[in-house]
Formats: sequence, structure tokens, C-alpha cells
Amino acid sequence: MRIALDAMGGDDAPGPIVAGAIKAVQRDPELRVVLVGDQAQVDSHLAGVDSGRDRLEVFHCTQVVTMEDSPVAAFRRKPDNSITRSWQLLAQKKVEAIVSAGNTGAMVAGGFMSKLFLKGVRRPGIAALMPTLNGASVLMDVGANVAPRPEHLFQYGVMAAAYAKAMLKKEKPKIGLLNVGSEEAKGHDLAKDTHALFNRSHLKENFIGNVEGRDINKGVCDVIVTDGFVGNVVLKVCEGVFDFVMKVAGKEILGALNTEKQLAQQAMANLIKRYDYQEIGGAPLLGMDGICIICHGSSGERAIEKALLMAAQYGRNKLNETIVKEIAADPQLIGTAE
Amino acid sequence: MRIALDAMGGDDAPGPIVAGAIKAVQRDPELRVVLVGDQAQVDSHLAGVDSGRDRLEVFHCTQVVTMEDSPVAAFRRKPDNSITRSWQLLAQKKVEAIVSAGNTGAMVAGGFMSKLFLKGVRRPGIAALMPTLNGASVLMDVGANVAPRPEHLFQYGVMAAAYAKAMLKKEKPKIGLLNVGSEEAKGHDLAKDTHALFNRSHLKENFIGNVEGRDINKGVCDVIVTDGFVGNVVLKVCEGVFDFVMKVAGKEILGALNTEKQLAQQAMANLIKRYDYQEIGGAPLLGMDGICIICHGSSGERAIEKALLMAAQYGRNKLNETIVKEIAADPQLIGTAE
Repeated sequence: MRIALDAMGGDDAPGPIVAGAIKAVQRDPELRVVLVGDQAQVDSHLAGVDSGRDRLEVFHCTQVVTMEDSPVAAFRRKPDNSITRSWQLLAQKKVEAIVSAGNTGAMVAGGFMSKLFLKGVRRPGIAALMPTLNGASVLMDVGANVAPRPEHLFQYGVMAAAYAKAMLKKEKPKIGLLNVGSEEAKGHDLAKDTHALFNRSHLKENFIGNVEGRDINKGVCDVIVTDGFVGNVVLKVCEGVFDFVMKVAGKEILGALNTEKQLAQQAMANLIKRYDYQEIGGAPLLGMDGICIICHGSSGERAIEKALLMAAQYGRNKLNETIVKEIAADPQLIGTAE
Repeated sequence: MRIALDAMGGDDAPGPIVAGAIKAVQRDPELRVVLVGDQAQVDSHLAGVDSGRDRLEVFHCTQVVTMEDSPVAAFRRKPDNSITRSWQLLAQKKVEAIVSAGNTGAMVAGGFMSKLFLKGVRRPGIAALMPTLNGASVLMDVGANVAPRPEHLFQYGVMAAAYAKAMLKKEKPKIGLLNVGSEEAKGHDLAKDTHALFNRSHLKENFIGNVEGRDINKGVCDVIVTDGFVGNVVLKVCEGVFDFVMKVAGKEILGALNTEKQLAQQAMANLIKRYDYQEIGGAPLLGMDGICIICHGSSGERAIEKALLMAAQYGRNKLNETIVKEIAADPQLIGTAE
């Protein structure tokens, strides 16, 4: 599998990005990575690499969309940027997947503008893995679509369930709709209309109805459906609360101990590492005709390696073929094209 | 101050509810509590009480809105329920405040139907206290209004800032708008339009712009403005992540220790107690002409006592007078009545 990697995207790019690519090709012998970015800069980080070097190539481009750039304006002003070039490689089928730790809004906008959607998909969305007491669950969407329609949310449930099945090996993923209460009549119109779509769909049996914020980490379902505004806020709230609790717990617990302080400190470090996003790698933009993995801006070598391996796994599991099949099961719910 | 307390609202009512009222009147000699509920049941829990008994009275009613009831239907079917009776006591100025751990939706619906809004307020909203690394912040709205307009959100900022000033003693509360990114152009129309209102208001200097989910617990601002859908989800996600982290941290840390297990266990118990909602008491429905405190359904004696003391404090600090003044400062932003 050939993957385009945005070498210029990420807070410390290109150093750790290139390093992650090197690790990934050394780990997976079927992987080929096209490093999209400034040839001289990328080359300097490739110097001395031996193993896997023949499966790393550079696609030179001269511009970068920064984290502060407004996506659409940046695309106009910087046509030779690494994100646009990566999407073009995908559109031209020169690669099967693209991976970037750059500007998330620009990655999504590039995908939306490419119109490379899978058959039947109205709007792609970003699927993030959430740790729970029952293993990982999929939260979708976490930011691609902040003002979705009910049919978009319904399709997020379909796609995220396919993802949970293919990637997390959950045979019959349970789907919940994030809402302000468990009763069917709760929430705003978007929630009520989406609830009705699930109940009329082929996934009716998998749909457990509304779930609340406190249910996510309990793992009451494998898929949590929500709009990109709420999903993005939830993802970042989880990050914030985790940091907060580890800080106050560290102070309280370490302050209470005498001889076993170091043991406790090590246990907390293990915990922080276990729930580090670097261990997950990235979040796929599901619904694209091709594979697109979006990484955290501060991704290091480890996160990039994991994201590349995730893209390879995504391809091997034929997730997009499953999505097309599942989306086709309820044509009557989606109505005519927008 | 005279407060109506919904004696029948809450998972274990009326036992712990009445017990909380007894504690509160014993604690605050100016407090009088009207216990709204079934006379015989309430009386049985008052038997033997000596100190403060003369400041506890019962307002008999025969019906209860359950947690599962749909508010509007319940009001029609059960006109003699304790929530409706409490709102009536407030409307008739027989009490200055009402407190309930019953059905939150019914409490809010009762308030909205009463139309007892403070002058200039378009929609009341629920303000919850969030623990942060910088003390408590106010998150508003957490569930009263799941489909607000920009002027509602703007007024939530005004009211929550007044609350932070009066109750948390923050001199110039910093206000942030919860969004999916820090840049002004981020988010859906509701967020963008609300952002613009703050920038044209008398609170412009206090408005720090957009904040993200991970900023809440860092305490980057004193007030976080959001719609009732997002706020409710955020509140419950915080609860869920806290529980999750304490569970996994407990297992990891206690598992690593030998001789100091008990010390660590005690430290964790302290932590759980410190961030227990029972210690906060309840969340006010701000914008009502009167004081309304909404408590968690599983509130025990301690939470009810705290909520009653909070209501008294709210009255002494003349929070509603401040809200009316602050709301009146930007009449041009709110437009004509809906």
C-alpha cells in the first residue's frame, strides 16, 4: 500500500513526521510512503536511513498551510501546499491513503472540495476512538461537520459501526445517539429526527437509543453518534478532564505517601502513556473514496508511525467496501441529493 | 428568607430531602423552609426534631412528577404535584426561593410556563459550577434551552458573569464562548453570531473569545457560555471521565503499591469527596424573578442542605438585582420581543 504523508503538517514538522514514516516502513514491509513536502528539508531527515529507504520517496512542494490559516483562503493563496498536493495524489490514484498532522480544518476542507465521496455518502465525518471501561468506542463526528442534517448523523452511525466492526472487531456494534437524556423525546430537532431515522433503518436492532455524556467512558455502546460541534467539544473536554484529574490526583496521592511515592509516580506515568493519543495515531475521515487519517497537531514520531499502520490496516480490512455496502442498505432514508 | 423545598423530588425522597432541610435551618437561623409534599410522609421524617422545628412547615400536596414523566403531560395529569405547587408559592411571593432535586425538565418547564422572568431576560438558563485548576468556573447553560438563539447565549454570559461576581467573588469575570477552535470564524452560525454580540456589548473587555473543551478545567476563564445541549453533554462527560479516571487510576496505582495502599486509598477518597456534586448543592436557573435551585436527582441530605444555603446566599448577595442591571446595559443587542 502506498500512502501520501503530509511531511510539513504538525507542530514540529518535518522532523518527527519523517521519523515516523521511517519507523512505519521498517515495521510493515508492504508499506510505501510518499513524503509530501519540501525536498531539501525532508531529505535532511532521511540522511543515513538504510532499512526501508527504497519505500520512502519525496513529492516536492513549496508551501505549507499553517495551523492559523483559514483553509479556503490558504488553498487559494498557496496552491502548492502539502495538503492540497496530498489530496491530488489521492484523486489521481497515485496513493491509496493520505495522512496529515497539519491543519485539521484544511484536511477536511480539502476532502470536501475534492468531492471524492464514497458512493451514497452525503458528508464524510471524523471518527475518534474513545477509551472506555469496555475497550475502545467510536465517537463520530468530532469536527468535520458542525451543522449536520439528520441524514448525515444517521450515516455517521452507519460508517462508525462499519469501522468498529472492521477495526475493533466488534461483531454487532451497539450504536447510541448522544443526547441530553435517555428518553426518545429528549433534545433538539436534530436529535429527535436522527433518532427516528435509526429506528426506521436496517441498523434498528443495533441502535440502543439515546446515551448521555456520562455513558461514553462507561462503554455502554460501541458507537456514539453526534454532530461535529458536540463531538469536537466532547473530545477536548475528555482530554481536559483527564489532565485535570491526573494533576489533582498526583498532588493528593503523592502528597499522602512516604516511602512508595516513586511506585505511585511510575503507575501514574504508565496511565498517562496508556491514554495518550500518540498511542492511537489518528482519526479517519470516514466517507472518502480513499483513506484519510487526521492526526493531532502535536503528533510525534510514534503517533505518525501508528497512523500509517492504521491506514494500512484500514485498507487491508476493506473498510470502504463495507461502508459502501452498509450505506446502500437504507436508500429511502436519505432522500434525493442535496 | 423563606424557601419552598420540593420534598417529593429526588431518587430517595422524601427522607434525605427532609433531613437536609432540618440541617439547613439548624445551620442558618434566618432560614425558613416550606416542605412541599405529602403531609403524612414529610411529618414522619420530622418526628422528634427539636432545634429549628418552628422554621419548618409543610405545604401539603398529593402528587409527584416522576423522573420518567414528560413534564408538560405530567403537569396536565397531576395538577397537585410538588413542582407546580412550589412554582405557585414563588409566583404568589409566599417564598423567595424554590429548591428541587426532582425532574429537571419539569422544574425548567414550570419556570418557563410561569413566565416569571426577570426584566429583560429572554430565556432563563441553568448555571453549573465546574472545578478548575483556578477555582470554580460557571458553565451556562447546562440544559434548560437546547435550541437557543444568539441573544439567549449572550444573556447567559451576562447572567453567569453576574453569578461569578456575586457568588464566587470574581471581580471582573472573564467570559469565554465554547467553540471548536479559538479563531473567531470557527464553529456554526450560533457560535459566530454570539461571538459578534459579545464584541458589541458592554462586556467586550471581559470577553476572551472562543475557548475549547480542554480549556474548561484549566480555568482559562470564569464563565463558559454554551447552549443547553452542549452544556448538558459537557457536564455529564466531565462526570463520566472523572469516574473513569478514578477507576483506572485506582486500579493502576493501588496495584503498584505494597505498604502504603491504604494511604493512597484515603487520598483518592478525599479527592472523590472534594469533587462530589453533593458538596456544591445545586445549580441555579438564572433569569427567573425569584431564586430557583435545581439539584441532582440522587441528592442526599448534604446536597439539599448545601442547596438551601446557596439559595439563602443568592438572596443576600442580591444576585437578581445585579442581573437586571447588567441585562439592561445592552438593550440594542436583544432586539424586539420574540
